[in-house]
Amino acid sequence: MIETIQEYAIGVDIGGTNTKYGIVNRHGEISHNGRLSTSAYATAGEFVAALHAALLPAIEAVGLRNIKGIGIGAPNANYFTGCIEDAPNLNWKGVVPFASLVTEKFTLPCTITNDANAAALGERMYGAAKGMNDFIVITLGTGVGSGIVTSGHLIYGHDGFAGELGHTIIRPGGRKHWSTGLYGSLEAYASATGIALTAREMVATAEKPSLLKEYAPEAIDSKVVFDCAMQGDEVAQEVYRFTGQILGEALANFVMFTSPEAIILFGGVTKAGDLLMNPVREHMEKNLLAVFRNKVKLTFSELKEADAAILGASALVWAMKTE
Amino acid sequence: MIETIQEYAIGVDIGGTNTKYGIVNRHGEISHNGRLSTSAYATAGEFVAALHAALLPAIEAVGLRNIKGIGIGAPNANYFTGCIEDAPNLNWKGVVPFASLVTEKFTLPCTITNDANAAALGERMYGAAKGMNDFIVITLGTGVGSGIVTSGHLIYGHDGFAGELGHTIIRPGGRKHWSTGLYGSLEAYASATGIALTAREMVATAEKPSLLKEYAPEAIDSKVVFDCAMQGDEVAQEVYRFTGQILGEALANFVMFTSPEAIILFGGVTKAGDLLMNPVREHMEKNLLAVFRNKVKLTFSELKEADAAILGASALVWAMKTE
Repeated sequence: MIETIQEYAIGVDIGGTNTKYGIVNRHGEISHNGRLSTSAYATAGEFVAALHAALLPAIEAVGLRNIKGIGIGAPNANYFTGCIEDAPNLNWKGVVPFASLVTEKFTLPCTITNDANAAALGERMYGAAKGMNDFIVITLGTGVGSGIVTSGHLIYGHDGFAGELGHTIIRPGGRKHWSTGLYGSLEAYASATGIALTAREMVATAEKPSLLKEYAPEAIDSKVVFDCAMQGDEVAQEVYRFTGQILGEALANFVMFTSPEAIILFGGVTKAGDLLMNPVREHMEKNLLAVFRNKVKLTFSELKEADAAILGASALVWAMKTE
Repeated sequence: MIETIQEYAIGVDIGGTNTKYGIVNRHGEISHNGRLSTSAYATAGEFVAALHAALLPAIEAVGLRNIKGIGIGAPNANYFTGCIEDAPNLNWKGVVPFASLVTEKFTLPCTITNDANAAALGERMYGAAKGMNDFIVITLGTGVGSGIVTSGHLIYGHDGFAGELGHTIIRPGGRKHWSTGLYGSLEAYASATGIALTAREMVATAEKPSLLKEYAPEAIDSKVVFDCAMQGDEVAQEVYRFTGQILGEALANFVMFTSPEAIILFGGVTKAGDLLMNPVREHMEKNLLAVFRNKVKLTFSELKEADAAILGASALVWAMKTE
């Protein structure tokens, strides 16, 4: 009798605060998903032990031998070395041989990459980039990340760190980034943090009435801006227009770099919908060389945010080379 | 008796004014090189006929059957389609099926790409990028072009037009480009034309004495700026400092995109040497995320300009797939 064996991958998405995980089959169906705190563990070793404990029942349920490997999306994760290197938002400082720690504990092969690269793989296997060989995913959350696919392959660059589009300079001499110290980088404007900063600046000088004026400056975060904009507040909407202009200009540059078929925007900031997308599209097109105009598909991700991260990480496993 | 057959490629570099060509062997040795006018021919068909006539004695000398193909670097050349599309600097308007015309006339396979991509292939086979899989070549001449190699492959993008880094916006709302109409693109500053424009602007407001003041504004071109700078003229040197700053900022963005091992600067503008390179290096490093700092090799091309274009075009032939 021939037994059909279902193959699985473990997908893990490590964020600064929380880590999400799940078991994924070849069809992109997630089971046994859960989460644990990232920041609660002082060392990577302790974290990996906790992750293993959390996943053990699931591994036993599907059978260790049916699991092909573990894919992990994490900040500052180096695909080539398997190390997490100097991640500013994690407790584990320096260069941590993360993939080795995981393989040792789980007795499974492990591949890591940064979260935005994982998101790009997820979009390609299961999302808006299905069947595409040339596209860029921009993640717009607390920070701004990117995963760039050309000719069907993620760009990792010489050292594994390619694709830091959030840190490209789009306003030379502009807003100083709170953590990198760079002036005028995309992330300083188009991240949730950047949106809050823009709103605080605009409210301070706005002459028209605004719901935002009812908040103390430090109480204005991107959620407040979103809520006010949705209620028709003009200043809050102007924040999105400005953010969209800067993002659109940046996207034009990205298009002239790799000439992608599509750019997919992903993450919490995209909740703003047309308030963001309309100025993004306008200013992207306006800054493109004629040969690129009206050709690039600009869309929001259709994947659920929690699922996308796990699916993307698991896609690393399907792409693993087997000896 | 076994006869050792030497294999050859024809390399052709089409510029707006002149076209250079040569026969190249596997070792990168160029023979039978020559040039003809590009602009003298009203149609692509006439030009191809003239090119064929010019090359015929060379083809007969080495033997048609020993020539593997023709590689051509040309403005707005599309690698995928073999067409030259809407090249602003050529007489042949619209979409010209250039590779087909060449193959028909020469009875040889033909591959085309833009001149900067060809330069990148030349650097990889014979120049400063020998053995490198991740690098960027920036051509600094009348215009600013680029060839981007990641994981050993040129980035062509979805439609064959990737790598237009000269048109990325580096000063939003800045100088209007004379032909694209874009505001603040790299080419508007870092090309020979851009350098002349910067010099004219600086001379108009400079309070210190300057050799440049002896020229009528329209007589100041990049060669004049270069000559004055070499004579120690402070205003002319400031032109290079400013140009280098803008180019350095742009290179920082490019590094954060593909994380290359090296960036190679090529073309007439690089004659300025350290006058250009020092500010380029300073401002590139200053605008990089920490993880990329002091890692990227920044060098001038070591290939002779005329040779590089022909070598690069011929490299297209060695990369051709044979059925």
